[in-house]
Amino acid sequence: MLLMSTLFLRTLREDPADAEVASHRLLIRAGYIRRAAPGIYTWLPLGLRVLAKVEAIVREEQNIAGAQEVHFPALLPREPYEATGRWTEYGPNLFRLQDRKGSDMLLAPTHEEMFTLLVKDLYGSYKDLPLTIYQIQNKYRDEARPRAGLLRGREFIMKDAYSFNIDDAGLEESYQVQREAYIKTFERLGLDYVIVTATSGAMGGSKSEEFLSPTEIGEDTYVRSPGGYAANVEAVTTPVPPSISIEDAPAAHVEDTPDTPTIDTLVDFANAHHPRKDRPWTAADTLKNVVLALTSPAGERTLLVAGIPGDRDADMTRLEAALAPNLVEPATEEDFTKHPQLVKGYIGPGVLGPQARPEGTEHGDEGDTAIPYLLDPRIVPGTRWITGADKHGHHVFDLTMGRDFTADGTVEGATVRAGDPAPDGSGPLELARGVEIGHIFQLGRKYAEALDLKVLDENGKQVVVTMGSYGIGVTRALALLAENHNDELGLAWPAHVAPYHVHVIATGKDQAVFDKAAEVAQQLEASGIEVCYDDRPKVSPGVKFKDAELIGAPFIVVVGRGLDNGTIEVKTRADGTSQEIPAADAVAHTVGLVQRALAR
Amino acid sequence: MLLMSTLFLRTLREDPADAEVASHRLLIRAGYIRRAAPGIYTWLPLGLRVLAKVEAIVREEQNIAGAQEVHFPALLPREPYEATGRWTEYGPNLFRLQDRKGSDMLLAPTHEEMFTLLVKDLYGSYKDLPLTIYQIQNKYRDEARPRAGLLRGREFIMKDAYSFNIDDAGLEESYQVQREAYIKTFERLGLDYVIVTATSGAMGGSKSEEFLSPTEIGEDTYVRSPGGYAANVEAVTTPVPPSISIEDAPAAHVEDTPDTPTIDTLVDFANAHHPRKDRPWTAADTLKNVVLALTSPAGERTLLVAGIPGDRDADMTRLEAALAPNLVEPATEEDFTKHPQLVKGYIGPGVLGPQARPEGTEHGDEGDTAIPYLLDPRIVPGTRWITGADKHGHHVFDLTMGRDFTADGTVEGATVRAGDPAPDGSGPLELARGVEIGHIFQLGRKYAEALDLKVLDENGKQVVVTMGSYGIGVTRALALLAENHNDELGLAWPAHVAPYHVHVIATGKDQAVFDKAAEVAQQLEASGIEVCYDDRPKVSPGVKFKDAELIGAPFIVVVGRGLDNGTIEVKTRADGTSQEIPAADAVAHTVGLVQRALAR
Repeated sequence: MLLMSTLFLRTLREDPADAEVASHRLLIRAGYIRRAAPGIYTWLPLGLRVLAKVEAIVREEQNIAGAQEVHFPALLPREPYEATGRWTEYGPNLFRLQDRKGSDMLLAPTHEEMFTLLVKDLYGSYKDLPLTIYQIQNKYRDEARPRAGLLRGREFIMKDAYSFNIDDAGLEESYQVQREAYIKTFERLGLDYVIVTATSGAMGGSKSEEFLSPTEIGEDTYVRSPGGYAANVEAVTTPVPPSISIEDAPAAHVEDTPDTPTIDTLVDFANAHHPRKDRPWTAADTLKNVVLALTSPAGERTLLVAGIPGDRDADMTRLEAALAPNLVEPATEEDFTKHPQLVKGYIGPGVLGPQARPEGTEHGDEGDTAIPYLLDPRIVPGTRWITGADKHGHHVFDLTMGRDFTADGTVEGATVRAGDPAPDGSGPLELARGVEIGHIFQLGRKYAEALDLKVLDENGKQVVVTMGSYGIGVTRALALLAENHNDELGLAWPAHVAPYHVHVIATGKDQAVFDKAAEVAQQLEASGIEVCYDDRPKVSPGVKFKDAELIGAPFIVVVGRGLDNGTIEVKTRADGTSQEIPAADAVAHTVGLVQRALAR
Repeated sequence: MLLMSTLFLRTLREDPADAEVASHRLLIRAGYIRRAAPGIYTWLPLGLRVLAKVEAIVREEQNIAGAQEVHFPALLPREPYEATGRWTEYGPNLFRLQDRKGSDMLLAPTHEEMFTLLVKDLYGSYKDLPLTIYQIQNKYRDEARPRAGLLRGREFIMKDAYSFNIDDAGLEESYQVQREAYIKTFERLGLDYVIVTATSGAMGGSKSEEFLSPTEIGEDTYVRSPGGYAANVEAVTTPVPPSISIEDAPAAHVEDTPDTPTIDTLVDFANAHHPRKDRPWTAADTLKNVVLALTSPAGERTLLVAGIPGDRDADMTRLEAALAPNLVEPATEEDFTKHPQLVKGYIGPGVLGPQARPEGTEHGDEGDTAIPYLLDPRIVPGTRWITGADKHGHHVFDLTMGRDFTADGTVEGATVRAGDPAPDGSGPLELARGVEIGHIFQLGRKYAEALDLKVLDENGKQVVVTMGSYGIGVTRALALLAENHNDELGLAWPAHVAPYHVHVIATGKDQAVFDKAAEVAQQLEASGIEVCYDDRPKVSPGVKFKDAELIGAPFIVVVGRGLDNGTIEVKTRADGTSQEIPAADAVAHTVGLVQRALAR
């Protein structure tokens, strides 16, 4: 039994200054965690109890799914990560260090390489497969902006599982088994989730899905259609419209366009001075050329221009996903100074990509000095555009794709809007925000090839193994539970993850009250209920109530004033309801409440 | 139930090349752990199961002792460790790194600083104390020579507890509570232990004791006396003999001592040419001056000379403990070249310490160019010595301490020998080797002062808190259990820490045998017994027996040939005994064996 008089705890009445979101604020205030460094937290006794329950649910569902638990070191040698390219690709997100002998080491952000090498070490035959192994372990990522407490930390706990199969059909099966285990895990945890198509980022691989928990504070934006399409906004593909014949397109013409600093003023000017015959010009007829600076994981910085219809903005998140593993940022003044051909506000295709390439060179050739140029997928041959004329104060009209300009390829870099069509034709998209709580990947053979993981098949032939990887953010799931279960008084845990089930309070100064409260607490504990008893003799009822509500156990039993009338108060934290129960029935009543709450 | 057909395991018939000790060899061969990097191990499913049981025992005893569990990050900022000096003192044993912003961080070797700061953060009154909090967590030490598998690793699991008290009496009480918890923990684990007085090393503090587990492969040497004295050899103090009057001592005289390259030849020469009147010279009358090079944690290298009776050697372990936190090594040829006053083989006190110090200077003064000189405690005033005359081929005889030379202090640097007297007069010492499995420290106020941990006392006055720290090497304890429980066939775990209790083997090709074995395995599991069933259809009985014996579950149930006669074989792994049990009774019999083994 926990006793408030000795529990290592200090509750805070004030919000910590740096805490933006409810879970961060309340987990600190209620004494579950403490910050040790930016994005790095210490677990106090109450936090550790919740964490153990969350971990247990994750572990049980992995075991039921036939995954076997192992445990890898966090501190690892460079070589395996060098072999797969991730030593470099992870860029500044990787914590790197050297040991006393000068050997490069890292703190693992995920363990694909080590799992691959372990299976290579132990197994050698198709008969050993399929295999899925997992761990629940500390991961390290040197986030540029750790935020929101446990939601984006630099040291955090993850369940990572890896599947090994002889062929793609096997991978698909192992993937589905983990996918089902994730569904059951999040349902048992009581976390809402949406499964969305995702991009693979630094992991590589062919197919991946994210489990997002819908919440306004989420960093991820996702889309859904009425017909069931769901994707992270990073992974949304734009339906490509049919090409248009260029025969009817008027010739391109450069015009003086004074006082048109914005798309709107440009459109107004165009309609006033150079009207279209078929319909008015709209912002969707203008072509914005956005200059981006890419930084490769090795630190090399290059420019790229993305052509985007003027009715949309460049979406840096989508661009970064599309151009991974590069970091992407808007070009700086210095970049423009170095490239005088880029006339700010009037950049057109004329100085970009194929048009600007020295004769006889192609993109990437030596001698190619042109800035690479990628277009939004909507910009198909035959579409005609108002865009920059590469000359201050001038735009070109009716510049026609496929006739007057072309590009080095396409890029998914424009914002996705509510109402955009789903790529699979399943209707208009709606947008929402969520937090990633799980991510499952069909890695395929990337890691097995890089690290030479082969087994003998039935015919005695060496074949490369195909892999999947499956992550759950354990500490993040805990934070989301806190995020979803709180009110203005504090946390309000569901019973299955609460640090304890019942908070017993003795109020007043009467020894009989304390004796009765202690007895109730003991009887509850004897019934298998987890109890915290606030036995502090000189603390006011008000403080005790506030602490109980802040900590957020699902049920609060108050032994106090009512005792004279032979009753004990039993409160339900989440809905604030309260009942006066005859003292003799209080324990049985509370046990029933807890059991029903746990069975839910 | 574990099934051998799917268990992620590969047993090895050959010892790994780099494994010196049985636990390392067998834990690898039986598929419990795998090496990921030098001194860094991956836990496979079997290993993880044993680890969980060892951890559970450690955790339970901590909880019973009233310690509360918390969990700290492994990755920590430099500042707290800078404040206590340990950032530097830990020298190259500390894994240091920088984050993406260039902030210095470390992987914690222990967490005194963080615990101190946490208590400072949460608590402020004497009423909050006493408090003992603990964690079970990964620790990092960049050992120069990781060895013996889990016995000395670079990433390892430790239980570290810290006590906080208002005064010394409270610390003594908290220390005794942890000491008792350690005794119970090691008894439950089934690990022999000796409690010995120890030195505090880089921890600091006033009093510390080690729990050593006696084993020939131990790196620690300890001593015991019949009267109950026990100490790590590093902490043994030498009884100081009474001073002798110098009045009767003959005058010192330098002699030509040709052909005396060793102590023995020198003693023979002395007895032949310059005999003592009272008794023959012995090696104990010669004074060896051993030149040592000290490297401070900051990397500064200085020389020091230790004067040691010639019948003993310099003990580098004792010297390093005495001169902590410096590293100690024998001086090099280069050191001798730089100090021509040191005539190798003939170094005497004349060129050392006070004798060699420029007039008017003291040890450590500016202008003091003499090499510091420390003496074995046996070298008291009035003792007379044969020692080097600082001239090739010459020794000085009857050089008398207190008359002819003195030193800068004493040092415990000579070897301890069996038969030496215990410092407390409790009889002659015997020596043995052991592995440190626990270490408890009365830290006192070192950390609280450095990090300003104060609380208000009863009178409203700020007082510095006094601390203890208490460590158990969890992974090391597991390795020692393996070290103590094995034979030429493999591991032979005691039931309470075995990965599972019963290994069921089906032998032969008869389906009835497999059916019966599966039934027995299921019935055992239904009785609460942990079972591994070797269900592999095409594996020979010989291989199955070898695997079972190598893995080392306490009981092996063989369903095979005997089945025709209605019997099943039940073997006890540790003693190799075996019984044919009527098939109908086999489950009940085995359950009884397991229950008795667990109750032991």
